Amino acid sequence: MSHGKQFTLYSHKTGPNGWKVAFLFEELGLTYETVWLEFDKNQQKQSPHIDLNPNGRIPTIIDHYNNDFVLWESNAILLYLVDKYDKDGKFRLSDLNDQYRQLQWLFFQASGQGPYYGQATHFIMRHPVNVPTAVKRYQDETKRVISVLESVLSKEEWMVGGKFGLAEIALFPWQDAAVRLIFPSGTYDTAKEAPHVHAWIERLRERPSIKKCWAEHDENVKAAGIIERIPLYHKRIEEA
Amino acid sequence: MSHGKQFTLYSHKTGPNGWKVAFLFEELGLTYETVWLEFDKNQQKQSPHIDLNPNGRIPTIIDHYNNDFVLWESNAILLYLVDKYDKDGKFRLSDLNDQYRQLQWLFFQASGQGPYYGQATHFIMRHPVNVPTAVKRYQDETKRVISVLESVLSKEEWMVGGKFGLAEIALFPWQDAAVRLIFPSGTYDTAKEAPHVHAWIERLRERPSIKKCWAEHDENVKAAGIIERIPLYHKRIEEA
Repeated sequence: MSHGKQFTLYSHKTGPNGWKVAFLFEELGLTYETVWLEFDKNQQKQSPHIDLNPNGRIPTIIDHYNNDFVLWESNAILLYLVDKYDKDGKFRLSDLNDQYRQLQWLFFQASGQGPYYGQATHFIMRHPVNVPTAVKRYQDETKRVISVLESVLSKEEWMVGGKFGLAEIALFPWQDAAVRLIFPSGTYDTAKEAPHVHAWIERLRERPSIKKCWAEHDENVKAAGIIERIPLYHKRIEEA
Repeated sequence: MSHGKQFTLYSHKTGPNGWKVAFLFEELGLTYETVWLEFDKNQQKQSPHIDLNPNGRIPTIIDHYNNDFVLWESNAILLYLVDKYDKDGKFRLSDLNDQYRQLQWLFFQASGQGPYYGQATHFIMRHPVNVPTAVKRYQDETKRVISVLESVLSKEEWMVGGKFGLAEIALFPWQDAAVRLIFPSGTYDTAKEAPHVHAWIERLRERPSIKKCWAEHDENVKAAGIIERIPLYHKRIEEA
């Protein structure tokens, strides 16, 4: 690749899943060039991205140091990167059972947190008609997912193996973005409802890899004008 | 455990995800005792299950030959079982890259197929009000997921590595159950729309492990009276 870096990362400026991969690139000191796809222009479903990833969703990576190996699904990418490029064992889990507990939480993130938080934001921000019962369904499911995390974090500082790991990287972006998008202002206080999740998110925000990338994410969110529109979305649902 | 078998499997008689684990137990010749949880009685959210799995969803396994190790999330369980108990290498992938392609498809199943097919059936069968736009959203997403599978299976006989594997085990239950639940009779013909997916499902139905377990599943579906109710659900949506 002409950019000379190890990886090309296809990503999105404000969506959650591409950032997971960026966090881990930063953690492992790997070089990457990001290609930002514009969903408004449907670029994720067009060439060149769709030729690499028939699912047409981000993130997708190309590993130029492994014969241009292409991989998509963010959590599969995390596992690939650690297996191949975590030379110092920063993310190594010495207890074999913990490796499967980590997989369990990565699948929980992929099948539980991501889709439900994503459906909540869909019905709040993009559904063609106003469906308060659907919004409520996914708000309730979001609370339930947070309570599952709280049940672990009230006993443990980190999700798996007593240290920062892939479960944190995978769970952070949606968790941090979700509450202000999904719940009308003042209706859900994570610090009160799930204090250990709240403290964990605060710790994660200070992690250098996350802090660096997330500042850029937050700038993008601001530039896209999403924050100002949130109260309007919730007002529309309330008035249905 | 008093049943003397290696595994206890918490599962559900008609839901898709527990069957994946049963298929793999059969493939690997592992002994297991199934505990069927009744969702109508909310048993999945109660003791003893919730004490093992704070997410309160099936499947959950206990491995009595590994100090009663508890694991949940079906696709994490599949990976655990193969890593630990596939002594003959039946599911071994010799190309290292294929191991990550397999993970990619397992995460695609967990984040794409399962949640969207599941939301379709929710809005068709269980949502408190009738929301045709939501049903259409998830019907469209189901077609899209099938087209992604078709894009692979039109070029390859199996999803990964040229042989039957975990991607098949993970994708089969929802794929086989989905079409008749999600689309009104006569409105979507997999044989026509996605002929390679159709042929692959037909091959999978004949796989002995799947054939044995799925016969029991189909009996359960029949006994629960689901088949007869499907046209009524779709009629309700049509009349909305």
